[in-house]
Amino acid sequence: MRFRIRPVETSFYDLFTEMANHLVEGANLLAQMLDSGTDKNALGDLMREAEHQADETTHKIIKRANTTFITPFDREDIYRLASSLDDVMDFMEETVDLVGLYELGELPADFAPQVEVLQRATQLTADAMPRLRTMKDLDEYWIEINRLENQGDRSYRRIVANLFSGSYKSLEVLKLKDVVDSLEHAIDALESVANTVEQIAVKES
Amino acid sequence: MRFRIRPVETSFYDLFTEMANHLVEGANLLAQMLDSGTDKNALGDLMREAEHQADETTHKIIKRANTTFITPFDREDIYRLASSLDDVMDFMEETVDLVGLYELGELPADFAPQVEVLQRATQLTADAMPRLRTMKDLDEYWIEINRLENQGDRSYRRIVANLFSGSYKSLEVLKLKDVVDSLEHAIDALESVANTVEQIAVKES
Amino acid sequence: MRFRIRPVETSFYDLFTEMANHLVEGANLLAQMLDSGTDKNALGDLMREAEHQADETTHKIIKRANTTFITPFDREDIYRLASSLDDVMDFMEETVDLVGLYELGELPADFAPQVEVLQRATQLTADAMPRLRTMKDLDEYWIEINRLENQGDRSYRRIVANLFSGSYKSLEVLKLKDVVDSLEHAIDALESVANTVEQIAVKES
Repeated sequence: MRFRIRPVETSFYDLFTEMANHLVEGANLLAQMLDSGTDKNALGDLMREAEHQADETTHKIIKRANTTFITPFDREDIYRLASSLDDVMDFMEETVDLVGLYELGELPADFAPQVEVLQRATQLTADAMPRLRTMKDLDEYWIEINRLENQGDRSYRRIVANLFSGSYKSLEVLKLKDVVDSLEHAIDALESVANTVEQIAVKES
Repeated sequence: MRFRIRPVETSFYDLFTEMANHLVEGANLLAQMLDSGTDKNALGDLMREAEHQADETTHKIIKRANTTFITPFDREDIYRLASSLDDVMDFMEETVDLVGLYELGELPADFAPQVEVLQRATQLTADAMPRLRTMKDLDEYWIEINRLENQGDRSYRRIVANLFSGSYKSLEVLKLKDVVDSLEHAIDALESVANTVEQIAVKES
Repeated sequence: MRFRIRPVETSFYDLFTEMANHLVEGANLLAQMLDSGTDKNALGDLMREAEHQADETTHKIIKRANTTFITPFDREDIYRLASSLDDVMDFMEETVDLVGLYELGELPADFAPQVEVLQRATQLTADAMPRLRTMKDLDEYWIEINRLENQGDRSYRRIVANLFSGSYKSLEVLKLKDVVDSLEHAIDALESVANTVEQIAVKES
């Protein structure tokens, strides 16, 4: 629709894909956290490193948006997308951090479905980012993310109902609820990324 | 202000009104949930059905926005309004779902003012939707919603203070707090609908 | 970038500065709340008064935006900035209100760093508002706010870990967690103010 008098800066797509790949890595680290044999301290270091790299990528995107004359889509939407991707990482890092801070040992087995949703949703997001270039075939991405978010919602409520069932000590309930809330926020943030992509696609189409 | 070369698609107003009417129904179902004689399972089914219908209406709005050349206001604002109305329903459905999942019996009597605020605010929202057509007489709507949200806030804090007063067992406190948080989020979401309407009215005026 | 055919209404900058000064006062009242000798009731009255004045300023800004033909930046951005500043005050007022409602006595000493972050961040915000006029030298403001928010995040998690450590009774944990959550939301809201300012600056530059 918009007239373009010179080639747009295309490397934004690469940076968004790079960003989403950090999220894939973060979700994989969360999956390892559920394994009983994992060294929690080493895992915490890897997660902080992934979060740091995601921050670097975010800054690269913002800097490039500020210095590029013609951006592939609205400058404001570039910020919104970058910052919503960054939120996902922050919540995943928070999850691992809380497990350490609260000195939690094994996490309950029923946390696994939440982490699987995160793994699947981050992978879908990474696969979708290169498609921003053509704005084509993005529908299936956000429909599937919305479906996953609904599925995550249901498993979240089951986990919490189980935490409240009387099998855990009071403080344990509070600690575990904080951890599962973080996972839930990470999933919500991925839905918010998908909504942002949808809005950009609608505007640009 | 904007030039229009052909009649705009007006049925958006009807769909937004339809959507808000689902919310009125949801709030009435919540009011029934407070009655001691209510069959909680049957109520849960009715709420899920209302939530499902609201989803259908949301999809109708989005599909129409995507396929209509001239929308009555910005396409993005149509999405934002539809999605903020949908949020209200999701929180109301969550409330009923949690009551079931946590196997809560009677809810404390002091939850009633929260539900009354929801009933009043959903009705005001349904009454306001047809006025989007002319963008007239909307001030009183959002002023009253803001007043109701403040009132809801005060009763929310009183309910929580009472939950924390020592009259309930630890797990009961956590369960009931989750339920009243859901009600509070539904009220906040109605305020967010009103803010969206206000921003649209300002833009279009 | 935009052509201006008559002088813009400049007093918006003064009103935003006035608003941010209410926030500075709110943060100072919170600092007093941590002092053991403070009369909590008198403090609550002062906080409600500060919140009331912030509301008045918000209404002045909105009314002026509605009646001014040429605003210094987009009308919608004026609303967003006013409303995000107002959110900060609401959370600070909530903090004091909860301390009263929950009949909490002394707050734990480790709450102090959160309040110090609020004092520093509100002061930075008040210093930045007049710079909206030229949109210059705002980078350091939002970078520093983001740094403070990160610092606040870390101290928030330490406080919560300490609340969950077993030194407090169950209900005391819940009450204190609500209070520190309010402080945390106020800090997040100040980051959201900074993000709004950044987006406005990017648009207008």
